[in-house]
Amino acid sequence: TSAASDTQAVVPDAFVDSGAEKQMITTSKIPGPSRRNNGVKKNGTSSSVKGAIQLGIAHTVGGIGQRADRDVLMQDFYVVESTFFPGQGCSLTPAHHYGDFHFKTYAPFAFQYFRELFGISPVDYLYALCNEPLIELSNPGASGSVFFVSSNDEFIIKSVQHKEAEFLQKLLPGYYMNLNQNKCTLLPKFYGLYCMQTGGRNIRLVVMNNFLPCSVCMHLKYDLKGSTFKRRASSKEREKTLPTFKDLDFMKDNPDGLFLDSDRHNALCKTIQRDCLVLQSFKIIDYSLLVGIHILDQMQPEKMTEMVEGSSSPQEECESTRQKVHYSKIKDLVQKDGCAGGIIETKDKRRGIPAKNSKGEQLLVYIGIIDILQSYRLVKKLEHSWKALFHDGDTISVHRPGFYAERFQKFMCTKVFKKIPQSPPTFTKRSPPTLTSSHRLLNDLHPSFTKQSPPTLTSSHHLQNDLRPLFTKQSPPTFTK
Amino acid sequence: TSAASDTQAVVPDAFVDSGAEKQMITTSKIPGPSRRNNGVKKNGTSSSVKGAIQLGIAHTVGGIGQRADRDVLMQDFYVVESTFFPGQGCSLTPAHHYGDFHFKTYAPFAFQYFRELFGISPVDYLYALCNEPLIELSNPGASGSVFFVSSNDEFIIKSVQHKEAEFLQKLLPGYYMNLNQNKCTLLPKFYGLYCMQTGGRNIRLVVMNNFLPCSVCMHLKYDLKGSTFKRRASSKEREKTLPTFKDLDFMKDNPDGLFLDSDRHNALCKTIQRDCLVLQSFKIIDYSLLVGIHILDQMQPEKMTEMVEGSSSPQEECESTRQKVHYSKIKDLVQKDGCAGGIIETKDKRRGIPAKNSKGEQLLVYIGIIDILQSYRLVKKLEHSWKALFHDGDTISVHRPGFYAERFQKFMCTKVFKKIPQSPPTFTKRSPPTLTSSHRLLNDLHPSFTKQSPPTLTSSHHLQNDLRPLFTKQSPPTFTK
Repeated sequence: TSAASDTQAVVPDAFVDSGAEKQMITTSKIPGPSRRNNGVKKNGTSSSVKGAIQLGIAHTVGGIGQRADRDVLMQDFYVVESTFFPGQGCSLTPAHHYGDFHFKTYAPFAFQYFRELFGISPVDYLYALCNEPLIELSNPGASGSVFFVSSNDEFIIKSVQHKEAEFLQKLLPGYYMNLNQNKCTLLPKFYGLYCMQTGGRNIRLVVMNNFLPCSVCMHLKYDLKGSTFKRRASSKEREKTLPTFKDLDFMKDNPDGLFLDSDRHNALCKTIQRDCLVLQSFKIIDYSLLVGIHILDQMQPEKMTEMVEGSSSPQEECESTRQKVHYSKIKDLVQKDGCAGGIIETKDKRRGIPAKNSKGEQLLVYIGIIDILQSYRLVKKLEHSWKALFHDGDTISVHRPGFYAERFQKFMCTKVFKKIPQSPPTFTKRSPPTLTSSHRLLNDLHPSFTKQSPPTLTSSHHLQNDLRPLFTKQSPPTFTK
Repeated sequence: TSAASDTQAVVPDAFVDSGAEKQMITTSKIPGPSRRNNGVKKNGTSSSVKGAIQLGIAHTVGGIGQRADRDVLMQDFYVVESTFFPGQGCSLTPAHHYGDFHFKTYAPFAFQYFRELFGISPVDYLYALCNEPLIELSNPGASGSVFFVSSNDEFIIKSVQHKEAEFLQKLLPGYYMNLNQNKCTLLPKFYGLYCMQTGGRNIRLVVMNNFLPCSVCMHLKYDLKGSTFKRRASSKEREKTLPTFKDLDFMKDNPDGLFLDSDRHNALCKTIQRDCLVLQSFKIIDYSLLVGIHILDQMQPEKMTEMVEGSSSPQEECESTRQKVHYSKIKDLVQKDGCAGGIIETKDKRRGIPAKNSKGEQLLVYIGIIDILQSYRLVKKLEHSWKALFHDGDTISVHRPGFYAERFQKFMCTKVFKKIPQSPPTFTKRSPPTLTSSHRLLNDLHPSFTKQSPPTLTSSHHLQNDLRPLFTKQSPPTFTK
């Protein structure tokens, strides 16, 4: 009864994995038990599913490209487009070998607007998703979802459950508002929501950004929630080349946290606060901050200087050992615009935040908030009541949205990210801007006295108070009798 | 049973109309039959209503001013705040003489955000609405609404019916989206929505922009819908100092329309098209383009030059005869930023569009789309069916939203506003930028060769097609088997 069982698994040439397949951020090379979930059969037999997805996306995005340029309207969020793709083809769709299927596109025009906002052109989107092979990843989370990554490493396609897809649709107007107001948001960049219907099954897919770029190898990866209960990577996870560690692991590895300069810390915390407020307003819980850490090797300044001059190919293969980033690109990799974390409206959307660990190592930190759609409030509530019988409620990651947001925010801004202790300001004159040493370069990553005004970090208690309509008021300041 | 009958009409000092009261854009000086509508008793006895409104707004806006700075969320659109104002005062509200009343504020935080977007600070808003007298206007429309104008001429308070207030609330998310995308929008700037409940009656009020500034006297005023059926000002209206003429009057007075330079015409038509699409998407009909025309007197260049140097008070009294605008300010009055019509995010929100009439007179045209809340679809439909028995349906202004939008747009962009016929470009060198003659100044108002790229004006048929989900598709351009 799998999705692909009643279709012919004929794989077009373009979909055969080439030998040059890059190693992904997750450990797709380690074989694990095959799971069947969300209608996608795994371990190679999903080729026809991939093919049908590519066909469907190519059709719907190609169609949008020809539309008139107009503003997004409220009702664009509720549009669902459906196209039938008979195997033998018809006047509107080409013939294919994936069996008859329907392909639904949710809110096509709204997602086109979002993609534009994120700087993704229809051509780039089509090319990456439809003309190059999709690479299947082993499931990095516990959700049982199936993940594909586009060959260019930029897009993640994730299978989602019915409830999640439905929830994302409801989220769209608020999501629009957040993108409009919070340009530095760390929330996932949603590029599209689709549903492939075949053989009576629905395979719902969301296309998102991959904010851990393959070109910068991560040395450490954490999934952080601000909870401590059972938040430790399993022994099975630890066996992976790049395990996804959790809160307790982070606290053990980095008891002092990661150090950011003051302005970046302020900006990042403000962004997390704003994102948490949006998540809370939609009663979302159980999201994580995914943190990828790249350690810049300070020990080899000669080599670094070399690499500044060198011209390595950006397509160079990515090793998961402590491979050095191309130092000629460090500046490009570093956040600008006062955004710490995600930036919308820049071409290269994946820039690291310069940081230090307590050993004094220079880091590039890549972060994003993930898993915001699994807001099964009822189920989670039950789960919590049950768990609460045995454990302190405060340490369980499943809790009411306000509490969850507050704890998340507090953990990230006080335990995970800290301000570099300010030494008294020394007004030394900077050396002239010639590239003489690699240390000069690294210093540029840590401007301790940038001009950006520090955002006021209001206390987390504000977060909740702000959501309640103010029924208690102070007397008006200007009215005189 | 009037709103004010059970309250003591004690007028605080600040609310007594001073002798320096300016003449308003409408003919408030001409006495007419007293109407009672929307719960507001007219002709002076509404003083206590005005007082209560001012007290309510001062309280609610003063309260918002103290809130934390945060993003607007979806649920902010649905918040209704209510405060009880007992006559004897309480710990939260001051004592007053308007009788006990409740004051409701709709979507307080969302409107605060809109006001910020429009460049209205809480202090300016409070001061203009609550610390200065509100001036009651005779009703310029047929809706039976009561209008107040703030003393600084910037804000209009209009009473609205229950359905209109409800509709505005529903409109808010879409309104937010339009402000975000269409910076040049001509839709009303909504600053606040309130409801005063007293003696079992509800007085609902919307605060909007006054886009016809008193400082520039209008010589002609038109309310245009693109319809011709009965669209002629009544003989009673014509008796007023500044009548509001209608479509048929415009066509008679200006058979050739008003001439804009090409770029401005393109920009204006694009804006009207975008606004119409939003209105159509909310099934709104029967809105008007209110057009105020100021005729710049070309006949007295000497005097104009004088006035450029002169320093007349901006508060100088406004005559409704052909008074000349302060020419030192012409440049300030003229639209910039490629927006023809309304601009958001500029300090002076009321700038005229330079134009010419067929007599060759230089004009400043002030425009805005009004009456977008009276979308009583059911009532209007009935009205239409009934009228359609006797008249050609096409010429009745009450029609389905798509047809209405298309006709409106076509009328404005082909009959009302026309492009100045392009003479072959002459590459004369401009005189150096010293202010030698007033003609130099006027030429600046008509840059025929500005650098702005002309927006593509898609046909009005697109408008409707775009609202329908595309079920018919062309085959995808990039997919190859």
